Amino acid sequence: MSAFEALGRPLRLGFIGGAAPSMIGQVHLRAALMDRRFVVVAGALSRDAARGRAAAAEYGIAPERSHAGVAEMIAAEAAREDGIEAVAIVTPNDTHHRFALAAIAAGLDVMLDKPMTNTVAEAEEVARAAEARGVALVLTHGYSGYPMIREARALVAAGRIGAVRSVQLEYLGSGLAARVEDSPDAAKRWRLDPAHSGPSLVLGDIGTHAHHLASFVCGEPFAAVSAEVGALMPGRQVHDYAQLRFRMPSGARGAMTLCQGAAGVENHILLRVIGSEGHLEWRHAAHNELRLCPLDGPPVLLSRGQPWLSDAATHATRFRRTGHPEGLHEAFANLYSDLSELAAARRLGVPPHPLATSAPGAREGLAGLRFVAACLASDAAGGAWTELDDMTA
Amino acid sequence: MSAFEALGRPLRLGFIGGAAPSMIGQVHLRAALMDRRFVVVAGALSRDAARGRAAAAEYGIAPERSHAGVAEMIAAEAAREDGIEAVAIVTPNDTHHRFALAAIAAGLDVMLDKPMTNTVAEAEEVARAAEARGVALVLTHGYSGYPMIREARALVAAGRIGAVRSVQLEYLGSGLAARVEDSPDAAKRWRLDPAHSGPSLVLGDIGTHAHHLASFVCGEPFAAVSAEVGALMPGRQVHDYAQLRFRMPSGARGAMTLCQGAAGVENHILLRVIGSEGHLEWRHAAHNELRLCPLDGPPVLLSRGQPWLSDAATHATRFRRTGHPEGLHEAFANLYSDLSELAAARRLGVPPHPLATSAPGAREGLAGLRFVAACLASDAAGGAWTELDDMTA
Amino acid sequence: MSAFEALGRPLRLGFIGGAAPSMIGQVHLRAALMDRRFVVVAGALSRDAARGRAAAAEYGIAPERSHAGVAEMIAAEAAREDGIEAVAIVTPNDTHHRFALAAIAAGLDVMLDKPMTNTVAEAEEVARAAEARGVALVLTHGYSGYPMIREARALVAAGRIGAVRSVQLEYLGSGLAARVEDSPDAAKRWRLDPAHSGPSLVLGDIGTHAHHLASFVCGEPFAAVSAEVGALMPGRQVHDYAQLRFRMPSGARGAMTLCQGAAGVENHILLRVIGSEGHLEWRHAAHNELRLCPLDGPPVLLSRGQPWLSDAATHATRFRRTGHPEGLHEAFANLYSDLSELAAARRLGVPPHPLATSAPGAREGLAGLRFVAACLASDAAGGAWTELDDMTA
Amino acid sequence: MSAFEALGRPLRLGFIGGAAPSMIGQVHLRAALMDRRFVVVAGALSRDAARGRAAAAEYGIAPERSHAGVAEMIAAEAAREDGIEAVAIVTPNDTHHRFALAAIAAGLDVMLDKPMTNTVAEAEEVARAAEARGVALVLTHGYSGYPMIREARALVAAGRIGAVRSVQLEYLGSGLAARVEDSPDAAKRWRLDPAHSGPSLVLGDIGTHAHHLASFVCGEPFAAVSAEVGALMPGRQVHDYAQLRFRMPSGARGAMTLCQGAAGVENHILLRVIGSEGHLEWRHAAHNELRLCPLDGPPVLLSRGQPWLSDAATHATRFRRTGHPEGLHEAFANLYSDLSELAAARRLGVPPHPLATSAPGAREGLAGLRFVAACLASDAAGGAWTELDDMTA
Repeated sequence: MSAFEALGRPLRLGFIGGAAPSMIGQVHLRAALMDRRFVVVAGALSRDAARGRAAAAEYGIAPERSHAGVAEMIAAEAAREDGIEAVAIVTPNDTHHRFALAAIAAGLDVMLDKPMTNTVAEAEEVARAAEARGVALVLTHGYSGYPMIREARALVAAGRIGAVRSVQLEYLGSGLAARVEDSPDAAKRWRLDPAHSGPSLVLGDIGTHAHHLASFVCGEPFAAVSAEVGALMPGRQVHDYAQLRFRMPSGARGAMTLCQGAAGVENHILLRVIGSEGHLEWRHAAHNELRLCPLDGPPVLLSRGQPWLSDAATHATRFRRTGHPEGLHEAFANLYSDLSELAAARRLGVPPHPLATSAPGAREGLAGLRFVAACLASDAAGGAWTELDDMTA
Repeated sequence: MSAFEALGRPLRLGFIGGAAPSMIGQVHLRAALMDRRFVVVAGALSRDAARGRAAAAEYGIAPERSHAGVAEMIAAEAAREDGIEAVAIVTPNDTHHRFALAAIAAGLDVMLDKPMTNTVAEAEEVARAAEARGVALVLTHGYSGYPMIREARALVAAGRIGAVRSVQLEYLGSGLAARVEDSPDAAKRWRLDPAHSGPSLVLGDIGTHAHHLASFVCGEPFAAVSAEVGALMPGRQVHDYAQLRFRMPSGARGAMTLCQGAAGVENHILLRVIGSEGHLEWRHAAHNELRLCPLDGPPVLLSRGQPWLSDAATHATRFRRTGHPEGLHEAFANLYSDLSELAAARRLGVPPHPLATSAPGAREGLAGLRFVAACLASDAAGGAWTELDDMTA
Repeated sequence: MSAFEALGRPLRLGFIGGAAPSMIGQVHLRAALMDRRFVVVAGALSRDAARGRAAAAEYGIAPERSHAGVAEMIAAEAAREDGIEAVAIVTPNDTHHRFALAAIAAGLDVMLDKPMTNTVAEAEEVARAAEARGVALVLTHGYSGYPMIREARALVAAGRIGAVRSVQLEYLGSGLAARVEDSPDAAKRWRLDPAHSGPSLVLGDIGTHAHHLASFVCGEPFAAVSAEVGALMPGRQVHDYAQLRFRMPSGARGAMTLCQGAAGVENHILLRVIGSEGHLEWRHAAHNELRLCPLDGPPVLLSRGQPWLSDAATHATRFRRTGHPEGLHEAFANLYSDLSELAAARRLGVPPHPLATSAPGAREGLAGLRFVAACLASDAAGGAWTELDDMTA
Repeated sequence: MSAFEALGRPLRLGFIGGAAPSMIGQVHLRAALMDRRFVVVAGALSRDAARGRAAAAEYGIAPERSHAGVAEMIAAEAAREDGIEAVAIVTPNDTHHRFALAAIAAGLDVMLDKPMTNTVAEAEEVARAAEARGVALVLTHGYSGYPMIREARALVAAGRIGAVRSVQLEYLGSGLAARVEDSPDAAKRWRLDPAHSGPSLVLGDIGTHAHHLASFVCGEPFAAVSAEVGALMPGRQVHDYAQLRFRMPSGARGAMTLCQGAAGVENHILLRVIGSEGHLEWRHAAHNELRLCPLDGPPVLLSRGQPWLSDAATHATRFRRTGHPEGLHEAFANLYSDLSELAAARRLGVPPHPLATSAPGAREGLAGLRFVAACLASDAAGGAWTELDDMTA
């Protein structure tokens, strides 16, 4: 029996951010509700009171539990017997640090949108605080919630492709393919301001996803990177592409191509892990599938719902039969499910279900920020190999 | 403004059926809740009281609103000021008729799992009752909720492929590929008993889906069929395959292959509509895409979230950008969204948003039963062409 | 050692037909020469002397061995010590019968374009003559030369998918999607005249291919068909589509959809064979691959050049490693290779290499004509089931 | 009228190398013969006399024109009126330099397998000699012969994707995935000896292909690279992988991943060119297709044989209709076709058909060697950016 089943009830969740025009807030909301493991009861959805009220109605939050400020919400909820037990933080990147610290200080479990913070120092602070206070913190590297990504991780761990030798990632999007610098769209505007989106837009936005996917599937961190980071579009002030090589402690080599200005690309992610005995290939456009290509036999098409998949994949699947497609909402919901288990376990003082412990947390978030910092340091040094462990700022 | 927005609140929904081991109940539940257009407040989830209680907890239904019987639930809810306004019927096929009639009689709006009933006569009765009482009734032909299926319908209606000349469908599954006749699995057992699953398992289970998809996309009914229906597995008592030709009133020809015993197939659906100026192709395995192949230019890959899609597709999409995959839960949720709009409109006495009116209802359900009856009559006559309009029983 | 290796030299080939604007002549020429198993030394390439001369130069045929008439070529070559030993017949369908008989009478081995003849009676005559005279006759059902089609046949024969239960074929092309009836293109014109192209354009042109593919892979003939044959384009005098059901002697069921008027389709062929233990799927658009999908395990992607393929597939492959694509020329060349082996064997009085004996010959050609006749008879009888063995005219 | 048509006869070709176990020799042979633009009349197929004789029979070369040595063949043929006019050089890399120089000195046109030589200095010598003597030299970067690669080049040149901003290449094979160092297979053995295969196996074998593809399609050279080159397999003495970034003179950025030890990969090549207005994507596994994805509209699937392709693609296509697959033999044959045109033009003193001038020649070969040298220099300098123009050795 899982800790969540032992708890026997959904957890009470408050939202920080999420009012229109946020798209990611809606994704979090649907994911949090999908398996009825959370009820959304409070929110500080917008600094703008009118927007906050409108969003509260949409989120099903009673007016009296909709607040304009985070501190206010935390205080008000702490005073209630049925106050929130966890928060979802879906605000711009530069606020993650202070809102996460506030929630942790209040003993709330945290679902935090990525990147964890904008700097390594901030990430270290959040990680230390979460550990000290003992709260659960899950970072929404949503792609790691896909069942076939979890299958890939299980296959690598089980040695199905032998020793990992080469890891290849592509993450290409078209959000910055056209000139959006003058767009009135607020969702885009904060991203274009490094004060809000952090030192490198492309690395924070999609680089940390690719970095986490690689580490998650291979089961090891990045040791060092050699990177080129910059802007493909002439005159652009933020980074829209990066090309990097990396090394893992095992000696595995990697290559990663990141681009947010890829005209005509539809949020393309490719992950290929080549081992001594075979390789795995996963593409976001066919995320319900995973190709396992052994050295000594024909390629095999694994797909979500097949009965011979790992527990990790099956556990993360709702349609436990093939050919019934799930999507990104379910992947996010798998992270919410993990958070509910971790939170229930700590409340009951029992160990969480082992399958819930793979969710990306503070340690992974910190690794992501070190990755960003190392890429920028390498780029500044003409692409010189740079160790992630040396990153402190 | 839609009627649902004018109503300004979610509708109260009761479930008929849905306790374990039902899989489809969970799908309905997630779909009903996804957009917060319904709250699930009551249920007659199982005739088995213990199962019903367990399911009620899972569905978030208060114990006092969980009932063992449908009539009991309807009566108890009718007595409450905050009683249910709609029901989701997810019980075995043979019960659809009486539960739908009971709900309609109580003035409740209805989400009804397909096939609508087991016979044409029953379907006619339900259709007449729904019309007489004025309630909204939506049938969960869930595939018609996919945005790219709605796009296909919009493209055909807009003449983008010219006059429809040939329609090709495949629906293949593997549920009956192995011998399941002695399985202890209840979900399979009722299907194997024609008293419950109806006169033709394959036609009721998947044939009505394929029939509806073709009519939905082409915008016209089936006029006549020539069919072979039977069992591929030696000794099987229920139908597991059908192969048919059909004609539409416009003169378009069609071919349909249905099989539930296709070993190794993962719920495969193909729809191809060939017109005088081009054709459309959609496969369930890539349901977020639609190929539009004109006569005089290269094939074009349409995909969910593209800004140039029809309103019908965009309206049925949550991630309004490409490359963020949705799945079958969202397709079902689109039907729930349609029902919420139809129900809100009738409660407010206003016309529903036009895009909600494409949802399959009683008329489509009746057409489906006539399709089943015509196929069986044709098969009995050695495959002779049989008009759907002649079917009355 | 094969008979061809024992012979130790290429065979001398003459062409009947093949001058511009013939496209298929060029395909035959490239295929015949690809493996240096034939040298092309004579021809009756066109009734038009100028065209014939131009083509002779292109085919590398000396002027004195280029003839205006078939009888003349056969007679002239018979008088030479180094005269032709085989002919390739690539003329319009209605001439196949008389040219094949002439070649057979002269003791020449024959590569004959499909369909073998235009009627069952003619086909029987050719088959009887070929058998009586003992010559080798191969019919260019080119798709059966693809290595992965041969692999499919080997897998079915080896029982890898168990007992065959359902066979599904689609063959769609766009050659008749637009109105071509008034086209000045001679290659199209003869096809539009039943006196030349035979009683059913769609059945002769592509139906016989689909029929042969199914029989070839399943290793059994068609027993009976129920068919609809006609014209999708209003006013068209020749058949451009057919939809049929069929049965094989083993009890396997089949469905076939044929259409030459499918706007925007690029010569699409699908073959799916469903057995009791799994299924095979092959698509022409990815002809170098074959999906083997077992009942009890994940789908497997077989591809040309893999070392674990059958001898039948490997024998038909030039690049004996994966990822080096071959195409339709090689498939045709495989049939020429088979003919060279059969021809060499008969000249040496030894048995041919067993792998060469799968090539479609007179028996398969006759079966194809019976298939056409049965489809037409069934259509005339409203789709009634019609036995192929009953066809005599 | 092309120069080749004006010449009015095939050219006489001699082979240098090509006896078993060479695979590439057979590919050249089929390609040279495919369009009857060459006749193969002489050869120095092997230093081993017995092997040479056996191969001569297979190549259709008369015994008296089969020689053990290259110089001997060139001399003997020069003495004949009907002596060879061109040679195909398909020997190990280290011999390309001296055989090419010998052929050039004799005034023969040359088809030379890639890489052109093993060093920049050798490449410069060959390039200078070819230019001085005025002979035609084509390098078999066979992939550039694919029609859809030529289409990609034409689309970039026509501005269809705007200014090129990012170029991404993957070339992965599995030939070195297992330990082959002790293999008795001679074809592998010479590759594993840098004295024969050159300073970097992976760069010479597949890197020069990827480099040429990128330059060919983008229409510009590489300016600089930052590379990591090495061995993924522990203990391997030759290079089996490389990961690099590159820059083009226009400012376009690039990333390239090369690996010959990718277990389970089937000769995978990906080319993606991202421009300001859209992008192109081509994969070797579907080489008959090309995706054109504009910024402001849906992706478009171009495929070989479509009537709206460029002249460059159509000219390189034999089946001038869609859905009739070609393969790698045809791609090589397109290079032979180009060589025949260049050779005929120089013999007639007329300009060659413009479409034949895109074939890779000495200049491209030299660029390839500079690319290899720059990658090695960069790797030696820890991945520092290295200009190709600085490479001289």
